[in-house]
Amino acid sequence: MQVIELSRPTLDGLARAQRPDPTPRRGEVLVRMKAASLNYLDVAVASGAYPGVDYPLIPLADGAGEVVALGADVDGVQIGDRVAIHPKAVWPSGRGTARNAAVMRGVSRPGSLRELAAVTAETVVRVPDHLSWAQAASLPIAATTAWNALVTGDIGPGHTVMVLGTGGVSVFALQLAKARGAKVIVTSSSDERLARATSLGADHTINYRETPNWAAAAWGLTDGVGVDLVVETGGAATLAQSLAAVRQGGVVFTIGFLSGAQTSLDLMPIIAKAIRVQGSNTGSAETLTDAVAAIAAHAFEPVVDQTFGLADLRGAYETLSAGGRHFGKLAVILDW
Amino acid sequence: MQVIELSRPTLDGLARAQRPDPTPRRGEVLVRMKAASLNYLDVAVASGAYPGVDYPLIPLADGAGEVVALGADVDGVQIGDRVAIHPKAVWPSGRGTARNAAVMRGVSRPGSLRELAAVTAETVVRVPDHLSWAQAASLPIAATTAWNALVTGDIGPGHTVMVLGTGGVSVFALQLAKARGAKVIVTSSSDERLARATSLGADHTINYRETPNWAAAAWGLTDGVGVDLVVETGGAATLAQSLAAVRQGGVVFTIGFLSGAQTSLDLMPIIAKAIRVQGSNTGSAETLTDAVAAIAAHAFEPVVDQTFGLADLRGAYETLSAGGRHFGKLAVILDW
Amino acid sequence: MQVIELSRPTLDGLARAQRPDPTPRRGEVLVRMKAASLNYLDVAVASGAYPGVDYPLIPLADGAGEVVALGADVDGVQIGDRVAIHPKAVWPSGRGTARNAAVMRGVSRPGSLRELAAVTAETVVRVPDHLSWAQAASLPIAATTAWNALVTGDIGPGHTVMVLGTGGVSVFALQLAKARGAKVIVTSSSDERLARATSLGADHTINYRETPNWAAAAWGLTDGVGVDLVVETGGAATLAQSLAAVRQGGVVFTIGFLSGAQTSLDLMPIIAKAIRVQGSNTGSAETLTDAVAAIAAHAFEPVVDQTFGLADLRGAYETLSAGGRHFGKLAVILDW
Amino acid sequence: MQVIELSRPTLDGLARAQRPDPTPRRGEVLVRMKAASLNYLDVAVASGAYPGVDYPLIPLADGAGEVVALGADVDGVQIGDRVAIHPKAVWPSGRGTARNAAVMRGVSRPGSLRELAAVTAETVVRVPDHLSWAQAASLPIAATTAWNALVTGDIGPGHTVMVLGTGGVSVFALQLAKARGAKVIVTSSSDERLARATSLGADHTINYRETPNWAAAAWGLTDGVGVDLVVETGGAATLAQSLAAVRQGGVVFTIGFLSGAQTSLDLMPIIAKAIRVQGSNTGSAETLTDAVAAIAAHAFEPVVDQTFGLADLRGAYETLSAGGRHFGKLAVILDW
Repeated sequence: MQVIELSRPTLDGLARAQRPDPTPRRGEVLVRMKAASLNYLDVAVASGAYPGVDYPLIPLADGAGEVVALGADVDGVQIGDRVAIHPKAVWPSGRGTARNAAVMRGVSRPGSLRELAAVTAETVVRVPDHLSWAQAASLPIAATTAWNALVTGDIGPGHTVMVLGTGGVSVFALQLAKARGAKVIVTSSSDERLARATSLGADHTINYRETPNWAAAAWGLTDGVGVDLVVETGGAATLAQSLAAVRQGGVVFTIGFLSGAQTSLDLMPIIAKAIRVQGSNTGSAETLTDAVAAIAAHAFEPVVDQTFGLADLRGAYETLSAGGRHFGKLAVILDW
Repeated sequence: MQVIELSRPTLDGLARAQRPDPTPRRGEVLVRMKAASLNYLDVAVASGAYPGVDYPLIPLADGAGEVVALGADVDGVQIGDRVAIHPKAVWPSGRGTARNAAVMRGVSRPGSLRELAAVTAETVVRVPDHLSWAQAASLPIAATTAWNALVTGDIGPGHTVMVLGTGGVSVFALQLAKARGAKVIVTSSSDERLARATSLGADHTINYRETPNWAAAAWGLTDGVGVDLVVETGGAATLAQSLAAVRQGGVVFTIGFLSGAQTSLDLMPIIAKAIRVQGSNTGSAETLTDAVAAIAAHAFEPVVDQTFGLADLRGAYETLSAGGRHFGKLAVILDW
Repeated sequence: MQVIELSRPTLDGLARAQRPDPTPRRGEVLVRMKAASLNYLDVAVASGAYPGVDYPLIPLADGAGEVVALGADVDGVQIGDRVAIHPKAVWPSGRGTARNAAVMRGVSRPGSLRELAAVTAETVVRVPDHLSWAQAASLPIAATTAWNALVTGDIGPGHTVMVLGTGGVSVFALQLAKARGAKVIVTSSSDERLARATSLGADHTINYRETPNWAAAAWGLTDGVGVDLVVETGGAATLAQSLAAVRQGGVVFTIGFLSGAQTSLDLMPIIAKAIRVQGSNTGSAETLTDAVAAIAAHAFEPVVDQTFGLADLRGAYETLSAGGRHFGKLAVILDW
Repeated sequence: MQVIELSRPTLDGLARAQRPDPTPRRGEVLVRMKAASLNYLDVAVASGAYPGVDYPLIPLADGAGEVVALGADVDGVQIGDRVAIHPKAVWPSGRGTARNAAVMRGVSRPGSLRELAAVTAETVVRVPDHLSWAQAASLPIAATTAWNALVTGDIGPGHTVMVLGTGGVSVFALQLAKARGAKVIVTSSSDERLARATSLGADHTINYRETPNWAAAAWGLTDGVGVDLVVETGGAATLAQSLAAVRQGGVVFTIGFLSGAQTSLDLMPIIAKAIRVQGSNTGSAETLTDAVAAIAAHAFEPVVDQTFGLADLRGAYETLSAGGRHFGKLAVILDW
């Protein structure tokens, strides 16, 4: 089969190669890969910033495809199923042990840029029929993370969720929070992206270029109570305002550091407001199953901002690493 | 002030009387009562079936009105606020101790049929502006109970809730489950009431006269998985099917016994499917606050099927005790 | 290898046989079986009372042994590990779906009475060094179930747990509840068994022959509040008193029906006291891991009342089905 | 009655004064104060570092005494009860709203240094008979906070709790974690205080002078897994090591900033290990009730390191603000 390998930690190291076709072993299904999607960790893997990667590596954690064969002892998956593959290769459900969190396709195991993948049946999730392959591939990391945030915040009607920016996790958090009946505030530097957020159901939008103190704005939009949950994708540049924006007893769900991971911190608001700062590194396939059930129930459309062919794979990486100008996910169609 | 008292446990014992105007003490607010609503417990109180009631009693647990004066040390409530009064007089929040559950307006304390009520500020909940007084009075027991059921079942998008009948709790459960993004199945013996349920968002309806094995129907509607939550208002006649309808690990939220409290039970499905049978006796004012926040956020209309004037108070009781033919709540306007 | 098979649903159907040695496949470990233990479901399997069993079957759900070989892709288990094997063959962690609950060694898959078993690595749990093989084999169903009960009741210091009888689950519930800091009441018909319970830390004991209204006694022992949790092993004959013994908002954890599964039920206490009746059918291997961690931390001794050799296997079944006279677990040593 | 007032934010502002005797109003009990205890917030109040304090103020948040009179409508408290008074004056139970958290005796309401206090019945908690007045007064803030930490971490047998230092919260966390069956590691700069911790049940102790990298030591003591919960009293100087010491998915319960609130922070471990950093500002009286139930059940002795008379009140403040050399709590006997 054909694969794309990353021979060394630079985009120049991306190259096509031939590898033997895999055979599904006991408990595995064989998936003909159709699409992949990009996450920031993929950029880190390709630049050498991600720790513990052995090159060469078949990159990209997220992917989707069609089940074409079943190993022994597989239940609940059929040939012909259209599935998203969860990148956490040994974390079907349960607690996130260190090993569950660490063993990851596209990082320490082969990723999605291959014609065929033999993967454990418990780590694939059937996707709704209305999704394209690019949409299906956009789900694993972003939808799992967004759902985890909403579950952690126990978000429902009467609650307000604050979403920073319009990247993949943020747009899923917006859509899934609406499906759970909550009010959503979205920030961005672009009025155009905010208009797209509004069209997806955002109740309020804040252009943080025009309103640099968006925490105060969020405070106003919640009658001085504060938001119930911030989906914190920003890191160093946004954490202080996120802590300011959240209500007494609220949750800051910390998943990103687009603006850096090293920051100064004032513990006072965390203690005085009894804030929960919850870090997250994706979640289990069971969480993805729940997120996909919500997507299916509401038949909403995961937002793929741009799709790239394999010929423009480098462009996909570069668009993501340029940062902050897209809306939703970037996908790669495996058009060998 | 004028009040209606129940001098003895029969509807013949209902009579108008004069009582001194109350003064709000420390921590209390004075409410000019505008409307009340009926629950089955009120029928039981009026017939002597409810234990531990001392007559004479000012009846009706649920009520709503306008705050007209504040006692000392009251925060968070203002004169002019339109409020629903939670009947659990000493259960503002926290665990339901035996005393929290037992001390109840309309049962062991004066109820809603009076011109003025001095009640603890923590047990009133401000209602959205779009509600009428009858709608406001319909909230306390039914919306609290329905919300409790949904929270217990951790219900959200991708879940299915089964609602038995179209009484007050059932209609709130339908509306609030939709606000949380879930799918709802409603049963009734009346196609007309099922049509009303559909107009409120019910995804599926089952006429149990035509489909006596509604558990099997529910099974079919969930692809053979079973429903996540049954809001069990029926009791003896419905419990076995409710246990059959619920999925592995699901919740049967048991609040009623329209068809009797004495039943035969097969423990096998409870054990084999690891079902949670959760009894409920309303909940705290904090739960009502959450339910009302959801109602406010979605601006939906609590359903008051009929309103009665004080002159027809007896008719209100009789309509409820006739049972099963209404849709939503029955309210009483305090038109002295 | 040698195995014991149950050719048909009667103890007369137990017979030794030869089967090919298994090889551990991907994700599996090969265990040289050392001991097994009996649960009521094994008696039901051997009598034909358990639904969905295909004979011939290698019986007994619970077992323990030494890891002697590893299949591919196994992490976290080493050759030489002493392990208990969880009978839920496809439920390592996460939600209990119908399939997770149903696929069970000794029921729908081969059980413990064989020299060698190839089992999924995620379903074995390393046991503390201080346990004998018989003690190790006593863990899976009983300790998992007891731990599930305590977690469901959120039991800790200041709480009271009521344990009915002195069977395997009951004795684990007693020991694990003490490890969690709770007070424990044990009932039995035998003063001798109650004395053993006291020696294991039981705070109060009730001989239900002498005190038939043990619910009232429990009420007295908790200053009229009621117990926080009843571990309900009795079924038809005990459920009503269990509902009477539990406090407002308490939990009746229903796992057994020694006295029958068909009972009459009064819904009133469930509703009025907001009781949670929680059925349970064991739990996942992750729950067993937690229970074993508690056993290791406190170095307590699982109680094996009698051990049987293979020559007296029938005696083990008969002792259990005679019922109610043992204290803790019955184990079988695989002395081929 | 006699009181001690703080006329301005300096210890020189402490002076005795006469105030009218209070009368218990509806819902209040009158308590003859016997003892108080000190917390860091009291030092901040006395130095002007605590925001929002109006002077003059009767200081000290924590206190205990005997109920000598009941206002109207009081249930569950009797004359003669020995009670601890929870400082959160309007937070008997339920969610910690901003107001629930902010309204606090000794800060925005009169504190404990008075002969008589009329306080809401729901905010007093009956203490076990075996406690002295100084021990009773040591409970409210410290035991509530310690219990909150253990509940948040869901701590039980098989878990490891790391306690930083030996101040009031830390020693309660040690004792209560042992009551819940967990393993406890204590750090201190003093071998003598570590020996006292060991005598109270600490499983491991680390002198951080000798072992500056105590996070690595904790890692070793948990077989490379990390601790389940850190009770984080240190702040700026300890947070980074606390994040290093905790396991994947663990909890850092952040309550103090003995070494400062302004710190630098690396978000990477929070995200990669999915850590929950949970701030806390005490908790409700219901949480104190639970902690006291655990203390009663295990009859353990709250540790009061030193008691001071009113004549040496200044010494009590100075001992606490000198910091870090005591073990457990500092109490003040109200020996007018």
